Amino acid sequence: MRREPHADRIDGSTRLFGIVGNPVTQVKTPQLMNALFDAGGVNAVCLPFDVPVNVFEPTVAGLQALGNLDGLVVTVPHKVRAISMVDAISDTAHRVGAINVMRQQPDGTWFGDMFDGTGLVQGLTRLGFDVHGRHVKQLGAGGAGAAVAHALATAGAASVALSDPRRESAEQLSARLNRFYPGCAAKVDVDPANVAGVDLLVNCSPVGMKPGDGMPASFGVFPAALQVVDIIMTPAETPLLAHARRCGCRATNGRPMIEGQLAAFAKFFGIDMPASFACFSGTHA
Amino acid sequence: MRREPHADRIDGSTRLFGIVGNPVTQVKTPQLMNALFDAGGVNAVCLPFDVPVNVFEPTVAGLQALGNLDGLVVTVPHKVRAISMVDAISDTAHRVGAINVMRQQPDGTWFGDMFDGTGLVQGLTRLGFDVHGRHVKQLGAGGAGAAVAHALATAGAASVALSDPRRESAEQLSARLNRFYPGCAAKVDVDPANVAGVDLLVNCSPVGMKPGDGMPASFGVFPAALQVVDIIMTPAETPLLAHARRCGCRATNGRPMIEGQLAAFAKFFGIDMPASFACFSGTHA
Repeated sequence: MRREPHADRIDGSTRLFGIVGNPVTQVKTPQLMNALFDAGGVNAVCLPFDVPVNVFEPTVAGLQALGNLDGLVVTVPHKVRAISMVDAISDTAHRVGAINVMRQQPDGTWFGDMFDGTGLVQGLTRLGFDVHGRHVKQLGAGGAGAAVAHALATAGAASVALSDPRRESAEQLSARLNRFYPGCAAKVDVDPANVAGVDLLVNCSPVGMKPGDGMPASFGVFPAALQVVDIIMTPAETPLLAHARRCGCRATNGRPMIEGQLAAFAKFFGIDMPASFACFSGTHA
Repeated sequence: MRREPHADRIDGSTRLFGIVGNPVTQVKTPQLMNALFDAGGVNAVCLPFDVPVNVFEPTVAGLQALGNLDGLVVTVPHKVRAISMVDAISDTAHRVGAINVMRQQPDGTWFGDMFDGTGLVQGLTRLGFDVHGRHVKQLGAGGAGAAVAHALATAGAASVALSDPRRESAEQLSARLNRFYPGCAAKVDVDPANVAGVDLLVNCSPVGMKPGDGMPASFGVFPAALQVVDIIMTPAETPLLAHARRCGCRATNGRPMIEGQLAAFAKFFGIDMPASFACFSGTHA
């Protein structure tokens, strides 16, 4: 079936969505959401909005005031600060302390939610890995790490062991997890390289992004049954992922996490998910 | 030659342009500029930005603060107010008292210009009508009328006769034209239906937009040599245009004015005009 090229559809009635970040050159959300709009024949477009840190609030307020902008995705470094730009947030966003989406409600107010962790869990489900009952080791307890750890606990992880060079970050996140999810045993793990008894290893630290970075810990040989996720998108294969693959492990970068959010974005923004995007729905194992 | 659909090119590096209006559902600028970007392989996109009147300044300030927005087109009702949002304006914009484009300069400041009238003159040139030495009758001396009258005078019109129910508007515009363009005889014409000695009749009044509107004056039969322009875009054929065609006149709506601006927009925003768009360059008669 021939479809009209998207830009030929941009007209005065086109509804706007955007991803707010700084920088934005690395973002993939416009490509994914625009493919969704194209497939569904929705007259909407998702743009990158490069919002400098020093003018974050007035710039986002300006975008929110547009009569034809329906929602924003929020990325680094604005996820915590974005909470101040909405009138209400979800329980998940409240627990994580950050949002990565906001939409305008019918009454004109703005509502925020956080799908980063949900996206990772859905992406793992799509790859055939069920988090329920599993023992997780997570490196990095910062902003992204908080969203991921909360989602893993929500999805029924049996335990989450947190390692972070900033030990107080790991302690605070561990305490919050134990408060909110009695079924999930969260703890601080001072030995980041230890993966004994671990089913899922997730890197939420930035180590591996910069050229010359090694692995985020001095890992030995992984058992082949270990599932490894590095949420870093660029480079596509970090030293950790290369090591995991050499050990015969299933290993993936952050792309399934972003793709896993697409269904959540669609539902949040009220966009019908075309059947051709069922692979992103996260409903099948 | 096969080209990629535009939206497939929207990524984190895409530069943003927009047209600011209220409403914006009727605008054609995104379609024209996006075709230009497509043809030239430019990674940029033009969006409609619906900016409510009561939040005009902070909303435009927010758009201007985006790190990846390079310029804005301005349409009704914001053209006069937009002057307050730029640091400097062109001589044309100063004479007209309004802008319809703004761009960010390399030093970070914003510069505004006004191409509405230039677009009309270029559109007429493209249709084979040279304004130089011609006698013009213009109905409507408001914002759009001012831009058109200044451009006609700049293009060498021998005379411009202005009719407006708000007589003081016609008088003020006439006085400004006579001050700036000694070679063009501007005057107020209290008989809007009189086209004796007129080569070009331009309607810049809103009469003809609303269903049930008749012509903006009680015209008799036009001489077939009269060129008629109605800058109204919707409906595509106003009662005035229908009458002109019945009289055998060359008659056109506002589309050549918008198309005629495309080359000016491209130059203003520093976009290379692909050869396939030479028809819009306004350089040939």
